[in-house]
Amino acid sequence: MARIKKIGVFTSGGDAPGMNACIRAVVRTAIHDGLEVVGIRQGYQGMLESNFWDMSARDVGNIIHIGGTILKTARCLEFKTPEGTKKAYDNLRSYGIDALVAIGGDGTANGASRLSLTHGIPVMCIPGTIDNDLYGSDFTLGFDTATNTVIEAIDKIRDTAASHNRLFFIEVMGRDSGCIALRAGIAGGSEAVLLPERDTAIDELIEKLSSHANNHKSSSIVIVAEGDKNGGAYHVAERVKEKFDFYDSKVTILGHLQRGGSPSSFDRVLASRLGFAAVRALLNGKDRQMVGLRGNAIVLTPLEEALHFSHFKLEDDLLEMINVLSI
Amino acid sequence: MARIKKIGVFTSGGDAPGMNACIRAVVRTAIHDGLEVVGIRQGYQGMLESNFWDMSARDVGNIIHIGGTILKTARCLEFKTPEGTKKAYDNLRSYGIDALVAIGGDGTANGASRLSLTHGIPVMCIPGTIDNDLYGSDFTLGFDTATNTVIEAIDKIRDTAASHNRLFFIEVMGRDSGCIALRAGIAGGSEAVLLPERDTAIDELIEKLSSHANNHKSSSIVIVAEGDKNGGAYHVAERVKEKFDFYDSKVTILGHLQRGGSPSSFDRVLASRLGFAAVRALLNGKDRQMVGLRGNAIVLTPLEEALHFSHFKLEDDLLEMINVLSI
Amino acid sequence: MARIKKIGVFTSGGDAPGMNACIRAVVRTAIHDGLEVVGIRQGYQGMLESNFWDMSARDVGNIIHIGGTILKTARCLEFKTPEGTKKAYDNLRSYGIDALVAIGGDGTANGASRLSLTHGIPVMCIPGTIDNDLYGSDFTLGFDTATNTVIEAIDKIRDTAASHNRLFFIEVMGRDSGCIALRAGIAGGSEAVLLPERDTAIDELIEKLSSHANNHKSSSIVIVAEGDKNGGAYHVAERVKEKFDFYDSKVTILGHLQRGGSPSSFDRVLASRLGFAAVRALLNGKDRQMVGLRGNAIVLTPLEEALHFSHFKLEDDLLEMINVLSI
Amino acid sequence: MARIKKIGVFTSGGDAPGMNACIRAVVRTAIHDGLEVVGIRQGYQGMLESNFWDMSARDVGNIIHIGGTILKTARCLEFKTPEGTKKAYDNLRSYGIDALVAIGGDGTANGASRLSLTHGIPVMCIPGTIDNDLYGSDFTLGFDTATNTVIEAIDKIRDTAASHNRLFFIEVMGRDSGCIALRAGIAGGSEAVLLPERDTAIDELIEKLSSHANNHKSSSIVIVAEGDKNGGAYHVAERVKEKFDFYDSKVTILGHLQRGGSPSSFDRVLASRLGFAAVRALLNGKDRQMVGLRGNAIVLTPLEEALHFSHFKLEDDLLEMINVLSI
Repeated sequence: MARIKKIGVFTSGGDAPGMNACIRAVVRTAIHDGLEVVGIRQGYQGMLESNFWDMSARDVGNIIHIGGTILKTARCLEFKTPEGTKKAYDNLRSYGIDALVAIGGDGTANGASRLSLTHGIPVMCIPGTIDNDLYGSDFTLGFDTATNTVIEAIDKIRDTAASHNRLFFIEVMGRDSGCIALRAGIAGGSEAVLLPERDTAIDELIEKLSSHANNHKSSSIVIVAEGDKNGGAYHVAERVKEKFDFYDSKVTILGHLQRGGSPSSFDRVLASRLGFAAVRALLNGKDRQMVGLRGNAIVLTPLEEALHFSHFKLEDDLLEMINVLSI
Repeated sequence: MARIKKIGVFTSGGDAPGMNACIRAVVRTAIHDGLEVVGIRQGYQGMLESNFWDMSARDVGNIIHIGGTILKTARCLEFKTPEGTKKAYDNLRSYGIDALVAIGGDGTANGASRLSLTHGIPVMCIPGTIDNDLYGSDFTLGFDTATNTVIEAIDKIRDTAASHNRLFFIEVMGRDSGCIALRAGIAGGSEAVLLPERDTAIDELIEKLSSHANNHKSSSIVIVAEGDKNGGAYHVAERVKEKFDFYDSKVTILGHLQRGGSPSSFDRVLASRLGFAAVRALLNGKDRQMVGLRGNAIVLTPLEEALHFSHFKLEDDLLEMINVLSI
Repeated sequence: MARIKKIGVFTSGGDAPGMNACIRAVVRTAIHDGLEVVGIRQGYQGMLESNFWDMSARDVGNIIHIGGTILKTARCLEFKTPEGTKKAYDNLRSYGIDALVAIGGDGTANGASRLSLTHGIPVMCIPGTIDNDLYGSDFTLGFDTATNTVIEAIDKIRDTAASHNRLFFIEVMGRDSGCIALRAGIAGGSEAVLLPERDTAIDELIEKLSSHANNHKSSSIVIVAEGDKNGGAYHVAERVKEKFDFYDSKVTILGHLQRGGSPSSFDRVLASRLGFAAVRALLNGKDRQMVGLRGNAIVLTPLEEALHFSHFKLEDDLLEMINVLSI
Repeated sequence: MARIKKIGVFTSGGDAPGMNACIRAVVRTAIHDGLEVVGIRQGYQGMLESNFWDMSARDVGNIIHIGGTILKTARCLEFKTPEGTKKAYDNLRSYGIDALVAIGGDGTANGASRLSLTHGIPVMCIPGTIDNDLYGSDFTLGFDTATNTVIEAIDKIRDTAASHNRLFFIEVMGRDSGCIALRAGIAGGSEAVLLPERDTAIDELIEKLSSHANNHKSSSIVIVAEGDKNGGAYHVAERVKEKFDFYDSKVTILGHLQRGGSPSSFDRVLASRLGFAAVRALLNGKDRQMVGLRGNAIVLTPLEEALHFSHFKLEDDLLEMINVLSI
């Protein structure tokens, strides 16, 4: 294998806090180690349009604390065709890019894997998504920040909930994953959490809320994961209201608020470690790996394995604690 | 008029950040000045139930920074009847309460005015509502904090908006008032603001967004006041989407998030000044006054006047700046 | 007077949160109104070095929420000489700049006044300093944000103070002004405030703290303005400790933390209004004015008057409340 | 071994964010599992004074998000004598307390270990300290929150540093541990970090700062751990200033600010898991264990082992990244 001289870095899929810190780490590690580094704007779309940016160490100054991604992201259907993948590869090669660091979720990793398998360009994938739904890393980039954003919202809502004897339903992100909902439910001291990974009957929820009311709780907060099978916070609230009108009830949909914000220390450190490790892995001849955090160590997992296995990450003790700690 | 010996303080209507700081100021000023002070829980409902709390200076320790209200609030229909008002007054008198400080919005002030006019108990009203919709004070308690909460949300959403070339519609509180929407629109650097006080045609909005897109803005944020006559953020987004699909568009409903949170310095100082002035005004023999802020001075406005006049507070320069500063 | 075609904008002196929002307002209002606008980097130093930046509406995109100043500031001795002032003016003229908006404190305003008086170039000054020590505006740009920063620090320190029965001395900024100290003292619920505007004997402070201890307060927080004549928080703490060892005592020096951070809604709106009004005033033929906030209105004050009068802004009720509300 | 019926819980040593969330978890898990639970105020001091509080599930409502500790902490010399330990044990027994959960640092764990070894009462220790300096847990309670507090301060200081071409020295807590300094240094994007675990010559630091200045960095931030052997931020700043006056330099001492604040989601979840696991471990007959986090699992480590081994936790990649990422 020829020595790598110029690497490309890009973000793709939904943006997540910490992506900028990760781009910074990739760029500076590469330059420190004697490589050139090219930012690819708008992910796979940018590859098709040769939307390239020769980056210097100064270009990533003062971005470690900023949410979003300076390289932007986009969805790109054309890249998924064999012709699109070929065109992206040709554009990369003609610009001299001989290895890639991809930051994003499973769609991003799938695309990178295909590019490497079909055309032989080495790729490292960094799990960047607030959903925490990837195998290969205990935590994905942005998950900690998003969870902090949710609990700050819960803390604010609790102020007003407690002043009015109110019942609040708060819908949080995570697609098919209940990770944000479960952690935020525990950390927010909520009374119940509805998760995509577990069926919760509305009757069961009502029974629980009734027992809280009897227990002299002045207000209750229910976290609803967007992937919950009961159909979202508005729908759950409607059905609870039919049978249980002890409290006034309100719904909040946090929405894209959860994707933004300055990354937490945890996410900035994670982003820096993953970006640093990705460049070093490429220099060590690795290919098609997911760079992740296991315990407190950075580990590589083959992309095939990372994309094959499911990512069930709900901790058993947390699931039990939801009921125990909300008595 | 007999000398006042024991005052009652209560919060009523929607809660607002700074109410606790205001309760603290009322309690401590009263005790400092040799009065007894009684907290009335749950507003007018608490008067009907004699839900009274003899408060000490320590009872309001460590609450200045906490959102919501330790006295809670409630809606109370019974109080609005002559019999209800009479019963409330009788309960106050039999507990020895000979003057009141009411913290809340116009409904609260109306109730206090009725109580004073009918039964002769002196009352001072403090404008406590995030909506900033009362005559008699440039700013109401909680408005500054709520506006800060909204711009923090806008800042987070801007991160993700800019990463994706997206159009965001953010619905904010304020009932019939556009004060939060206008200030947050300016402070959040938003592209357009829909206000209850002004009709905005959807076509006009679309034209504006188109010109921004042509101007190479990578994303746009539109603030929609909940009282806007186009029917709320979801509805506006639908209608814009029909004719303008340059951007991916998303809706966020901030909801009760805006009522909570630790009060800002501005609101804590305002709360302290208003509570302090309300007690002093009672001691000086005043009755039926709204205690408010005009410029940087605390002033009294007769309740009749405060409740009679409209509260149009949208500053002309801010209205013009929405268009000028978003080019 | 010839019609103005190109204005220069600069920041000078200590930076303050909201300066970027103000630069944005100046630039966009000028462009909206058909003017060209030039950013002058590093204040008066930049004039001497012709460090000019032709600014577009996009150059000030996405900066409204960012602390500091994208135009930077610097101290500049050379400008204070007649030759320096002449050179600055010549550079401005040869670049076609025919009016100035200066954002900063009294030093900044003095320089701008000299430039206008000596060479006839119209200037508008915007009070940008966290110290709130200028005549001509109830509040200066950055003061509200700085005060919020201080009370967030006080809130955090109160957590640990209350857990340990501790006495804390917190030193805050403001140069010769006690505005930050007084407002933060009230809003932070502190037990005492030492101000440059008032002599406080250490014995008096000790007596007050003793009475609090007897009153079963579990902890006390004392705010010390940096301009207080007792010599700073460390010195005050030393002297209190000699005579009063009921509590363990700790000192915190907040320092430049207070100059940074994302501006509050209040400061962003104020910055936008002042920048907008400054450009409009220049277009209306005004010269040598301080653009400020009085009540809720934007007003102009002749620079001679603004620089001549003292700026004593400590509200009487706040001074009295420090003792009343901390019982 | 007799079945446990009543457990005592206390906090001791320096307070840390998350202690309240942990107390809540201990109290509610115990009550859920059919135990009685007693809060011991002021740590070992409270044992000597039988300062006991029979706690209900409601007593720990609405505290999960509050910094500090509702049980307070204190230092206690008397407990360290054999007579003191005996007296504490006698008081616990006469109140019916037959097991303990101790939340604190190594001093706290040493005391609990002695109590158990000498008098046979089962104890579980939970690592609660911002310093992250305990063996037996990857992260201690409060460390994540403290690090977030530090980077928020760094972010604010960077605003003003970048506006002025300034050099900042920020001193952070951690006693003999550089954990906060290292993580905050990486996450804050600082230029250099001085750690107790590594000697850094001032000449070396100056050389590094010079190369940054030559590299067109407009400002630099140096993190100094309070345990660094160069003698603290003020001293380091003095020595750098002697030889290197390219920048204006400023010092910030964050101090006890770092101990307060609302705990992060990470710390609230960790606190809840550790408290829950501690009660369950006691019920399972365990004794003298440190309850900690390893990877993403809760594990028990014998106290003898936890107190014997050193706790060097500076990750090698982070140490290398300080230089690589600050180019």
